[in-house]
Amino acid sequence: MANNKITSRDVDFAKWYTDVVRAASLADYSSVKGCIVIEPNGYAIWEKMQSILDKEFKKLGHVNVQMPLLIPESMLNKEKELVNGFAPEVAWVTIGGQKELDDKLCIRPTSETLFCDYYKDHVSSYKDLPKLYNQWCNVLRWEKETRPFLRSREFLWQEGHTIHSSKEEAMNETNQMMEVYYKFFHDYLAIPSIKGKKTEKEKFSGAEYTLTNEALMYNGVALQAATSHYFGQKFAEAYDVKFTNKNNELEYVYQTSWGCTTRMIGGLIMVHSDDYGLVLPPKIAPKQVVIVPIGDSEEVKTLSNSFKEQLLEKDIITYIDDSDKSPGFKFAEAEVNGIPVRIEIGERDLAKGTITIARRDTREKIEVSKDVDIVTYVSELLDTIQKDMYERAEKRRDELTFEAHTLDDMKKILETQPGFIHAMWCGDKECEEKIKEIKGCKSRCILEGAKSIDDKCVCCGKEAKYHVIWGIQY
Amino acid sequence: MANNKITSRDVDFAKWYTDVVRAASLADYSSVKGCIVIEPNGYAIWEKMQSILDKEFKKLGHVNVQMPLLIPESMLNKEKELVNGFAPEVAWVTIGGQKELDDKLCIRPTSETLFCDYYKDHVSSYKDLPKLYNQWCNVLRWEKETRPFLRSREFLWQEGHTIHSSKEEAMNETNQMMEVYYKFFHDYLAIPSIKGKKTEKEKFSGAEYTLTNEALMYNGVALQAATSHYFGQKFAEAYDVKFTNKNNELEYVYQTSWGCTTRMIGGLIMVHSDDYGLVLPPKIAPKQVVIVPIGDSEEVKTLSNSFKEQLLEKDIITYIDDSDKSPGFKFAEAEVNGIPVRIEIGERDLAKGTITIARRDTREKIEVSKDVDIVTYVSELLDTIQKDMYERAEKRRDELTFEAHTLDDMKKILETQPGFIHAMWCGDKECEEKIKEIKGCKSRCILEGAKSIDDKCVCCGKEAKYHVIWGIQY
Repeated sequence: MANNKITSRDVDFAKWYTDVVRAASLADYSSVKGCIVIEPNGYAIWEKMQSILDKEFKKLGHVNVQMPLLIPESMLNKEKELVNGFAPEVAWVTIGGQKELDDKLCIRPTSETLFCDYYKDHVSSYKDLPKLYNQWCNVLRWEKETRPFLRSREFLWQEGHTIHSSKEEAMNETNQMMEVYYKFFHDYLAIPSIKGKKTEKEKFSGAEYTLTNEALMYNGVALQAATSHYFGQKFAEAYDVKFTNKNNELEYVYQTSWGCTTRMIGGLIMVHSDDYGLVLPPKIAPKQVVIVPIGDSEEVKTLSNSFKEQLLEKDIITYIDDSDKSPGFKFAEAEVNGIPVRIEIGERDLAKGTITIARRDTREKIEVSKDVDIVTYVSELLDTIQKDMYERAEKRRDELTFEAHTLDDMKKILETQPGFIHAMWCGDKECEEKIKEIKGCKSRCILEGAKSIDDKCVCCGKEAKYHVIWGIQY
Repeated sequence: MANNKITSRDVDFAKWYTDVVRAASLADYSSVKGCIVIEPNGYAIWEKMQSILDKEFKKLGHVNVQMPLLIPESMLNKEKELVNGFAPEVAWVTIGGQKELDDKLCIRPTSETLFCDYYKDHVSSYKDLPKLYNQWCNVLRWEKETRPFLRSREFLWQEGHTIHSSKEEAMNETNQMMEVYYKFFHDYLAIPSIKGKKTEKEKFSGAEYTLTNEALMYNGVALQAATSHYFGQKFAEAYDVKFTNKNNELEYVYQTSWGCTTRMIGGLIMVHSDDYGLVLPPKIAPKQVVIVPIGDSEEVKTLSNSFKEQLLEKDIITYIDDSDKSPGFKFAEAEVNGIPVRIEIGERDLAKGTITIARRDTREKIEVSKDVDIVTYVSELLDTIQKDMYERAEKRRDELTFEAHTLDDMKKILETQPGFIHAMWCGDKECEEKIKEIKGCKSRCILEGAKSIDDKCVCCGKEAKYHVIWGIQY
């Protein structure tokens, strides 16, 4: 029987999702409307994501900084597209130190303006470039409907903001960071993502273009997993960020930004978890192995401790649950919390010379000799779980990937089972908007260089220019 | 000749301080009034501080969480002392999503209220206790006069908030965390601090008592380095955080909080740095060794690379400065940035069979055989520098530590050379306020259990109750 605190995934996916968030103590609603409390289990996943990505960023020469939380209205107003994009969803500080402010301050929804304002005074020559800065911080967007991790007014993220002396270098950076995210999702989160370019309608306000990683959730709904923007010289012109190039001419810098957020904790849940609670890929799991001793004989204790020490020695994060709860309760708790591997060491099993090892992903129980080389066994099992989880997610994604040649095809698919829909597009916004009328289906990304699957636009029948993936989004 | 961008420390300490902050690219002013940009060199120090403290906190069973940035006015108002303490210095969000808010939201100046609001729904039995939560985040206080790191409207910190089932356990936690900070300052920042208790006047709004670590800067001004508060059941009563104890009775929880901020980057500068720029204790330096190759012969390159690899192998963070600047420029740059050890590898020296190693703290240059066991040599040198820096700071602190038996003593000391002043106190607020009239001198802390140095209060002459350290503060 599945966890009785969790609605079945197939009965009500939305309810199932929030049930898992609560049952695994990842986050809770707060008394602050639209904002969540990230609880220890959820924050530990974020810490792990941070440490992996931060290392990757640094390997590529990026350094961390911290810009202010607040942006004066006058500074924000310098770049019109960004203002128009974010104005409806910012929070304004109008009173500070008991006084009404002359220039009100918005809480950063993103920090392009602040980075530009800093860069303009810190770059003069091509020798000062590139600047490869990143920051880990909180941002705020006044969302109307919120869901834990997926959409909340405040969220945590990293935002990279780089400036370069040439268009080519900045475009390479934009591409490189999309690849970093892709690899992170693939290798650590066990989430297959699709790389592509956003349409003009869906790109980031102010960007020349936006590259994206799009992932598909278990229920066939799409999640924008991380984006990387190329700004060209747009912001540089608005904020006057100039440098002297090698030919001794003044030129505006070329700029990028890229970000990944706590939303991916939601993505992890919606790709991998089940009716028993959280399922985590071993490489992102803050705790990888739980040992449950059953009974309190010396042999049980000694073996539990020995296994724990051996595993910790090899950096496999292991703990013993020796609380006074029943074994059944401990098993269910380890399951709901998504501990990838559970080792049950019981007196009766030991008498037969065995222990039991349970996989969280498949819930399979395996009887193993108590003399097993535990480090090798568990290492291999963790690798297998990681690999299997990726393959299962990929299989599910592929099963929910369709092809449409007419609007009717699209309607039928979206009414039966949403997923990723491949279809050709002429490039007109009107067609994009018409398609959106079908259950809010949006272009997820343009697959650049992908083979054509039709000559005609799926919507208007005119000449097709782009191979696009469409879907319903979170 | 000292760095020409830096005012002499003895001429104008305040100007020297901001010159060092700028020359070492630690932080810059931003266009957001009262807020700074923490630049890569400054943020790297903070990252190092975070990683050390975070490991210590976790060793003691603490876990990280993330509470919302915003506090509704109605929630804040529940605990009067806290409100009164912080009301004058908060920033209020009054508009969100283009609408006036009914319940305005303040940006957290500290998060006691948010933790209590969370705890009240997540604790019911003594079995749920203790909760040992911490968060790394930004907070905002609407300061009028600001200085980089020392006092700015927004700053970064960690705030631990724990709740316990007994008074004794909570008081032990308060004490334990003060000790953690003390050891961190001592072992890593090479800053001797004095542990004590704040007077009623100086304690944290709403706390039953506040423990503090007080450090003395090079110019004799005191810095409150980190505090740890015991709240008793005050907040628990205001926010209704109750649990069923072992006797099956409802009881309010016992609470603590403790914090350390980016201000300590300022402390590091003011204790150790000099007219040549930043001086960093090796254990907190993000980069510990710079190798400067002089000339570009193969031998110079090979030895530079070999040293770098050997040192990195032993986790001594080393880089080669092979930019096209002159050696003199590179030396000055390494000095201003506070790299603890510089290795100069030049063709001429190599012909004599030597290399030169320079200590940043003493600026001493040492000629060493090129066949030196570089790992052993540098490891020992880094240890020596760390130890010497602590001893130098302690010596300076002791030289600037005085004893006063009358108000006249105090005046004379404060007019000549401020420092830590030991003096007895009767415990009356009036005397504290009278002493404050002398150049704003405040009680830093009560030395509990310290020997008496007089029977009478330094101010009123009545019976002395406390041995107090006084000083002018940042």
